[in-house]
Amino acid sequence: MHIKIHLSEDEIPRKWYNLGADLPTPVQPPLGPDGNPITPDKLSAVFPMNLIEQEVSSERWITIPEEILEILSRWRPTPLHRAVFLERELKTPARIYYKNEGVSPPGSHKPNTAVAQAWYNKEFGIKRLTTETGAGQWGSALAFACSLLGLECKVYMVRISYDQKPFRKLLMQTWGAECLASPSPETEAGRRILEKDPQSPGSLGIAISEAIEDAVSDTSGKTRYSLGSVLNHVMLHQTIIGLEAKKQLDKIGEKTVDMVIGCAGGGSNFSGLSFPFINDKINGASIDIIPVEPTSCPTMTRSGFVYDHGDTARMTPLLPMHSLGHQFIPPPIHAGGLRYHGMAPLVSQAIIEGLLTPRSLNQMECYEAAILFARTEGIIPAPETSHAIAAVIQEAKKAKEEGREKVILFNFSGHGLMDLTGFDKYLKGELRDYVLPEEDLEKSLDAIKDLPKPDIARSGRW
Amino acid sequence: MHIKIHLSEDEIPRKWYNLGADLPTPVQPPLGPDGNPITPDKLSAVFPMNLIEQEVSSERWITIPEEILEILSRWRPTPLHRAVFLERELKTPARIYYKNEGVSPPGSHKPNTAVAQAWYNKEFGIKRLTTETGAGQWGSALAFACSLLGLECKVYMVRISYDQKPFRKLLMQTWGAECLASPSPETEAGRRILEKDPQSPGSLGIAISEAIEDAVSDTSGKTRYSLGSVLNHVMLHQTIIGLEAKKQLDKIGEKTVDMVIGCAGGGSNFSGLSFPFINDKINGASIDIIPVEPTSCPTMTRSGFVYDHGDTARMTPLLPMHSLGHQFIPPPIHAGGLRYHGMAPLVSQAIIEGLLTPRSLNQMECYEAAILFARTEGIIPAPETSHAIAAVIQEAKKAKEEGREKVILFNFSGHGLMDLTGFDKYLKGELRDYVLPEEDLEKSLDAIKDLPKPDIARSGRW
Repeated sequence: MHIKIHLSEDEIPRKWYNLGADLPTPVQPPLGPDGNPITPDKLSAVFPMNLIEQEVSSERWITIPEEILEILSRWRPTPLHRAVFLERELKTPARIYYKNEGVSPPGSHKPNTAVAQAWYNKEFGIKRLTTETGAGQWGSALAFACSLLGLECKVYMVRISYDQKPFRKLLMQTWGAECLASPSPETEAGRRILEKDPQSPGSLGIAISEAIEDAVSDTSGKTRYSLGSVLNHVMLHQTIIGLEAKKQLDKIGEKTVDMVIGCAGGGSNFSGLSFPFINDKINGASIDIIPVEPTSCPTMTRSGFVYDHGDTARMTPLLPMHSLGHQFIPPPIHAGGLRYHGMAPLVSQAIIEGLLTPRSLNQMECYEAAILFARTEGIIPAPETSHAIAAVIQEAKKAKEEGREKVILFNFSGHGLMDLTGFDKYLKGELRDYVLPEEDLEKSLDAIKDLPKPDIARSGRW
Repeated sequence: MHIKIHLSEDEIPRKWYNLGADLPTPVQPPLGPDGNPITPDKLSAVFPMNLIEQEVSSERWITIPEEILEILSRWRPTPLHRAVFLERELKTPARIYYKNEGVSPPGSHKPNTAVAQAWYNKEFGIKRLTTETGAGQWGSALAFACSLLGLECKVYMVRISYDQKPFRKLLMQTWGAECLASPSPETEAGRRILEKDPQSPGSLGIAISEAIEDAVSDTSGKTRYSLGSVLNHVMLHQTIIGLEAKKQLDKIGEKTVDMVIGCAGGGSNFSGLSFPFINDKINGASIDIIPVEPTSCPTMTRSGFVYDHGDTARMTPLLPMHSLGHQFIPPPIHAGGLRYHGMAPLVSQAIIEGLLTPRSLNQMECYEAAILFARTEGIIPAPETSHAIAAVIQEAKKAKEEGREKVILFNFSGHGLMDLTGFDKYLKGELRDYVLPEEDLEKSLDAIKDLPKPDIARSGRW
């Protein structure tokens, strides 16, 4: 019985996989304010050109630079676990495997792209990165990466999280990053909000605006902005997860995978595990691939495939994606990383192509699943990760009913050691499911109905 | 260049190493209240007989039961890292390696023995374990182990930590353990303290008394007490760390180790890494083996080798150990796990035998080392672990001065993700070194001068 499957140092994948090269329909380009496809150089004030090239690349395989591999190999290859204790508890004939991305120093999959982005920026001569963070996972991952590569790092953290999650802020500071509450008095965007509402709790939209403004207003040209999800190059950097998983399954003779599951907020951990398997599916393999989201923020299950902005303040180009509308404000569930109005264009298009079957779950079911997982497998999951676990448990129970020896693979995207207040509330009976008011959803979707439609949406199912 | 060295599943050590079998002088037995060696059956109300047998065993190798290996292999073998980034920063010719025990689900080396102890108790028919915890690392490790093995677990947590570190308590509760503040109204010992001082902040001594009383007063005989350090069987269970490290160094052709370093509070993580190397040293190898303690709690560097109690309330037998006196109250440094008045008898005797060269370090130097480590290696150490790191940095600098290619191995006993307040204070300039008042130390040592002396101490250097 294989409990934890390792790869040795020299088995780490040496190329990233670009799903964009294999999707049946080409990925739609982002649009500028004039409604025309944006050219790479228009993005160059925000991102370094080497990452922009990755963003628009149609190459299938992109070589991972040695220096990036050297840093990733501090914690990669991550272990692949067989969830034997959970299987026994559920008395399921399913074999459940999970990639443990929680072993990275910041505790999630986020550093896979943080390290790559910091490295490419440094290579391009950039000295300083800015970013935003909500719950704090992304901010701490970028602080970690910048620390290892000797870049300055400034993180605009949504004020309400900054106040409620002081440990995340301390983590970033310990890695030498500057972390400040957003809205801040340091940017035009921040000052404008603070003038109107000095007590503003902030939002991811505001924090993005501040971080981008900070980057583009550095006249020395030495500062750029970094984003932790949604964009093509971010998904690319995460594919090392799925590529490792394939090698690990192969190593123990597990020939076919029936089901690949991951939680999805902006889409990066889900993409990381699933894209190499989507490739198999495009080539004829029979695999159910399931991104899981909260019912209270149903980006994939109840929205449209549209051109929409990535931020509330509409500073980003229009991206072809599933979106609840850039004005959408999701209910305050604990899985902060899943409270995003949009979905990565690559994931969105894979949904449109019929390659994925998204699912939405309620918070209480996810906490129940997280507790069962913690008490059988022993690892406490992040609130986001527990959405994947809840879906896995649904499928393992179904396998038991059907008497089928299904192979289920999921991404354990991060541990929950720094998110224990949610567990506390759940165990005390103080948590509940949030029902999304229909009128809120309709209003938000209505506000984007006149935005351009991606070609594939116009011609296809949508 | 090897950055992270793994062992595969089937390379996990299958036996623990008992240093007691190899020490030049036999380990001295614990003494009862009458001053005579205590017999194993006297301990049977507190510990199950199978663990008592391990406690007094003189076998060199003890087979690890398969069921324990199955649980340990959730996170073991742990990676051995080469600290290349730290080496480069220090420009040292030394090659620095560390075992990363922080990858265990509770984040430290503690579950190595927690799982073993819970398993042997279960095997013996025990249904429920009690223990104490100070900073919370041990309590969460035992909660974790009991959760996986289906035992009840009750943790008496020192009141001041219970109030100051709510996340550790939540961690135990998430794993299903009952965690309460000590002194508590649930035991005679606790009630007695609370009557005198309802606001008592508690102490490890009080919490041990409560946990032992709870265990021995269960008339069903289904409850036992569990200790996370000091005792021989605890050291035994930790030796899997050093045994793995030897295999890993061997794998990459690193033939000799010049220096083995670990922080030491009660001695368990230090023993775990070093005991297999002490064996080499007994057999002629030239290795400096250095346990590191805080100058503010100088158990090894400024105390005597005496027979003393393990707890303030003198409920435990007299153990032959280095002790600052069971009344000693160390200054409030952040490394809570190093604030213990005694030292494991096996470590104490190895010191007497001249096999170890203990070192004490100040808090500020350790925080400085921890920050340097976090910003080069990327992993944030626990405050305890940073004592080992500071000693390693001293040695790496010395190697540079001497131009020597020394091989240094240390134990990264745990991560500091749940101990960030200390870093916060350090970065804000609010921390300082604690100078131990000479008169406090003298008074405490004076109080134990009439206790029995271990034979080896009487005849030898002490």
